Amino acid sequence: MAKRKLIITVALTGGVHRKNVNPALPEQPEEIAQAAIECYNEGAAILHLHARDSEGNPSCDPIIYSRIHRLIRDKCNIVLQDTSSGGGNSREEERIDCFYADPKPEMASLNMGSLVRTVGPYAGTFFNNPRPLIEDFAGKMLEFNIKPEMEVYSSAMFREVNNLIEKGLIKKPYYVNLVLGMNYQGAVEANPRILSQMIDNLPKDSIFNVSAIGRFQLHLTTMSMIVGGMVRVGMEDNIYYRKGELAQSNAQLVARTARIARELGIEIATPDDAREILGLA
Amino acid sequence: MAKRKLIITVALTGGVHRKNVNPALPEQPEEIAQAAIECYNEGAAILHLHARDSEGNPSCDPIIYSRIHRLIRDKCNIVLQDTSSGGGNSREEERIDCFYADPKPEMASLNMGSLVRTVGPYAGTFFNNPRPLIEDFAGKMLEFNIKPEMEVYSSAMFREVNNLIEKGLIKKPYYVNLVLGMNYQGAVEANPRILSQMIDNLPKDSIFNVSAIGRFQLHLTTMSMIVGGMVRVGMEDNIYYRKGELAQSNAQLVARTARIARELGIEIATPDDAREILGLA
Amino acid sequence: MAKRKLIITVALTGGVHRKNVNPALPEQPEEIAQAAIECYNEGAAILHLHARDSEGNPSCDPIIYSRIHRLIRDKCNIVLQDTSSGGGNSREEERIDCFYADPKPEMASLNMGSLVRTVGPYAGTFFNNPRPLIEDFAGKMLEFNIKPEMEVYSSAMFREVNNLIEKGLIKKPYYVNLVLGMNYQGAVEANPRILSQMIDNLPKDSIFNVSAIGRFQLHLTTMSMIVGGMVRVGMEDNIYYRKGELAQSNAQLVARTARIARELGIEIATPDDAREILGLA
Amino acid sequence: MAKRKLIITVALTGGVHRKNVNPALPEQPEEIAQAAIECYNEGAAILHLHARDSEGNPSCDPIIYSRIHRLIRDKCNIVLQDTSSGGGNSREEERIDCFYADPKPEMASLNMGSLVRTVGPYAGTFFNNPRPLIEDFAGKMLEFNIKPEMEVYSSAMFREVNNLIEKGLIKKPYYVNLVLGMNYQGAVEANPRILSQMIDNLPKDSIFNVSAIGRFQLHLTTMSMIVGGMVRVGMEDNIYYRKGELAQSNAQLVARTARIARELGIEIATPDDAREILGLA
Repeated sequence: MAKRKLIITVALTGGVHRKNVNPALPEQPEEIAQAAIECYNEGAAILHLHARDSEGNPSCDPIIYSRIHRLIRDKCNIVLQDTSSGGGNSREEERIDCFYADPKPEMASLNMGSLVRTVGPYAGTFFNNPRPLIEDFAGKMLEFNIKPEMEVYSSAMFREVNNLIEKGLIKKPYYVNLVLGMNYQGAVEANPRILSQMIDNLPKDSIFNVSAIGRFQLHLTTMSMIVGGMVRVGMEDNIYYRKGELAQSNAQLVARTARIARELGIEIATPDDAREILGLA
Repeated sequence: MAKRKLIITVALTGGVHRKNVNPALPEQPEEIAQAAIECYNEGAAILHLHARDSEGNPSCDPIIYSRIHRLIRDKCNIVLQDTSSGGGNSREEERIDCFYADPKPEMASLNMGSLVRTVGPYAGTFFNNPRPLIEDFAGKMLEFNIKPEMEVYSSAMFREVNNLIEKGLIKKPYYVNLVLGMNYQGAVEANPRILSQMIDNLPKDSIFNVSAIGRFQLHLTTMSMIVGGMVRVGMEDNIYYRKGELAQSNAQLVARTARIARELGIEIATPDDAREILGLA
Repeated sequence: MAKRKLIITVALTGGVHRKNVNPALPEQPEEIAQAAIECYNEGAAILHLHARDSEGNPSCDPIIYSRIHRLIRDKCNIVLQDTSSGGGNSREEERIDCFYADPKPEMASLNMGSLVRTVGPYAGTFFNNPRPLIEDFAGKMLEFNIKPEMEVYSSAMFREVNNLIEKGLIKKPYYVNLVLGMNYQGAVEANPRILSQMIDNLPKDSIFNVSAIGRFQLHLTTMSMIVGGMVRVGMEDNIYYRKGELAQSNAQLVARTARIARELGIEIATPDDAREILGLA
Repeated sequence: MAKRKLIITVALTGGVHRKNVNPALPEQPEEIAQAAIECYNEGAAILHLHARDSEGNPSCDPIIYSRIHRLIRDKCNIVLQDTSSGGGNSREEERIDCFYADPKPEMASLNMGSLVRTVGPYAGTFFNNPRPLIEDFAGKMLEFNIKPEMEVYSSAMFREVNNLIEKGLIKKPYYVNLVLGMNYQGAVEANPRILSQMIDNLPKDSIFNVSAIGRFQLHLTTMSMIVGGMVRVGMEDNIYYRKGELAQSNAQLVARTARIARELGIEIATPDDAREILGLA
């Protein structure tokens, strides 16, 4: 169980929250880069990135991604993982504009199914990821040598994972992020039973990561460590440090996860360890 | 495990297949009524109904539902369960027009989430069941005294079931149809592990039924009998009797299920048994 | 799930019941041989054998085993699997005297742990199978080219299976008989959840069989067919055909299992199919 | 999941280890009392006690238990839970001599099945707990108003738990200690899957605790916190603090567990909280 290194991913910003819910949320490139370096110092090996425009709205602009990537690369070698989920009203094709950033990302998220937004300005609209889009994005990632972080929100989405495997559109090891508790129709609840079930449904040759939204985040990421998975923390998933207490920074959340891992005797992966584990070029 | 009666539902027609895939598929009211009576004679207690128009296209027309209901009621007391899923291009409001049939249905399906169609003329479109629609349909069923058959295509959909329970929009016992192997994005695969997981996720005070699509249908409905659930069979779910051999009739599929139940020493529920088990008025 | 052949084992006699509980129980060599041939005709591929002495008491006598083996071999090629569990007061070394029968058995049972008898004349005594005995018997089976049928009565016993694998004392495929509902302290209850759990705990490269004692036998062996396992039936495990109705013969029990398998579209293995599946020489 | 208090039990000494494996192991009454108070100060609510004689051998002597109880009661109100497992050669009747200590224990262990010792001076002998003994001990505990801590080493042992429930020999809430990884034949391995399975098999109205032996102890007790259980730590189960590093004291092990609980936002039960949760008089 414990004979392995734990990759900690930090999801700094996301595409939903704004500074009004937590003023420590990094939005602009400089803020993001500063947060990234702090998280790296606390043990994060992968950085999950969502860019925002100058107004703080989600943006797919490769210029902004380029700027963020460079600011970070100047300071540390954390693995760069960009989102391909776009914002609430992104056109399909622009969701992968970040692949054209310079330097390009080493990884990118790949949403493995469609969901219905339930809150916010886009409530009732579909977060649309039909199979042809998934295959198209996976193919582009192969072409750009970008490793997909396959985001799975329910066991139904393993059908899309298996489809990519069958069609040879992804390479081993398959890296699956099990996302629990997302407040979308089509996403599962966050509880230990559901997590165990999803792990049991993983295809062979998978490495899994656990993201969970809201109050059970910390319990489920800790359970992931114990059962052999990786973990993601950060303000995209949880703006609180504990009940009723906002997180002061993303680094504070990473630091707690690293402390728990150390208490459990689990070694924390460096960015280069993560590259080796995931087979990044 | 076996101290109970097994409710067999037959889904005669569905909204997808046409006679070109199996000429025995009943489409018109007289065909449907004839098939219903044959299935009743073989042990079916509930009839899951999809009406078709005179061209054989899915229809929500309460006149057609009235005609089917009357033809069946003249012959037997099988429980009438109408679909509320509409056809590929039904407007939301017309999906429950069948509630106005005379006689009205005793039960109706209630789809517990949204899916993406992947094949056929509507491939790529959403089968749209956002939370407000689900709540609205459930409320109407309460008002019309129609028992919902909640169709759950993945464990993510239990969030909608739990929402209806919390809001008091459904009554005990909660009747959940676990649908496996539907060829829609958002629906789980059909295998025994997934079935066990879904059963483990059922809310308290539930009675479950198993529907499965395609070649594993018979294995999974048989497993349902063994683990305490009910079963649905019929050409909506499977047009074959066995590999490479089309079903000759819906009754042939019901008869096999009844034979297996009898081999297993499981008593088959009559329609009135089913009314008592499900708490139909 | 169904792309495979089903091996039906029949356990004709066992070491516990006597004719007083079911007069059709075969005890003497001629009775056993007659029952074996009837079961072979109905689809049994493996015969699980317990010899009795002329008084009907459990016996390890290789002369009796030789006589039974010959009577059967004269008539059919069913796979011969002898018990190594002895009777209530057998000495350890005599439990494998059947290995010296002529012809020798092709398979033999191997109990993977110790249990406490709870009923009958030996209640409160231990059915003693400590690790050294298991290793010794497994070593003998290797030497005699007899394939072990490893009898596992709880998940704790997988530690003994894994020990044999680690020490190279058994060959692939590992053939594990999951025995549920045995009325011994140390044996698990018979229910579907426990069966699923035991299957999840099987070592890689295993083939499993399901035996269950008492009223749930038929449900659990049927579940085994569905989830990919083999089945054992017969009067050793269940003297009833259905509640309150004694089995008329072992063949009656085999015939029902074969009918269910055929209803489920599962092909039944011949003895030679079983030899191929299990890697018997 | 987290809306509850965590009872930490410390098992200071056990009946197996001696000071030669860890000189910090408390054996004599004064050492035990001192360790108990240190553990209480770090957050332990229940003390699991094994007495030793003046030579350090396991002892059932109520005089020694009385002395330990008094020394502890002078200093703190930690819940006193004595073993009823005896030593390797205890007579059955003396195993519960501790019930006659003054003050008497509030709880006592109750082994729910028989096991085979595999190592040490008693290797190959049975740790004998047949049903009549279990019922007898449970009856005595009812009479003495001592709450049983039912020790379950495999899912087979739930049959004994259910037997006590059916016979009214235990009171709600049923307190079950799931013991994983014990090096006895008949005990399950220690891994997360087995732990989940055992939890799924618990009877209704149970509260569970997790003990695990060896290197996975800390991971499995942490998993227990997350999935709603209680935890036991201490040198009886694990003489190491981490791989290759002996524990300096029992308190060091309790302190780590308390730190992890606090990181996870889980409140730690006081002894009086534990009394309320478990329904101690």
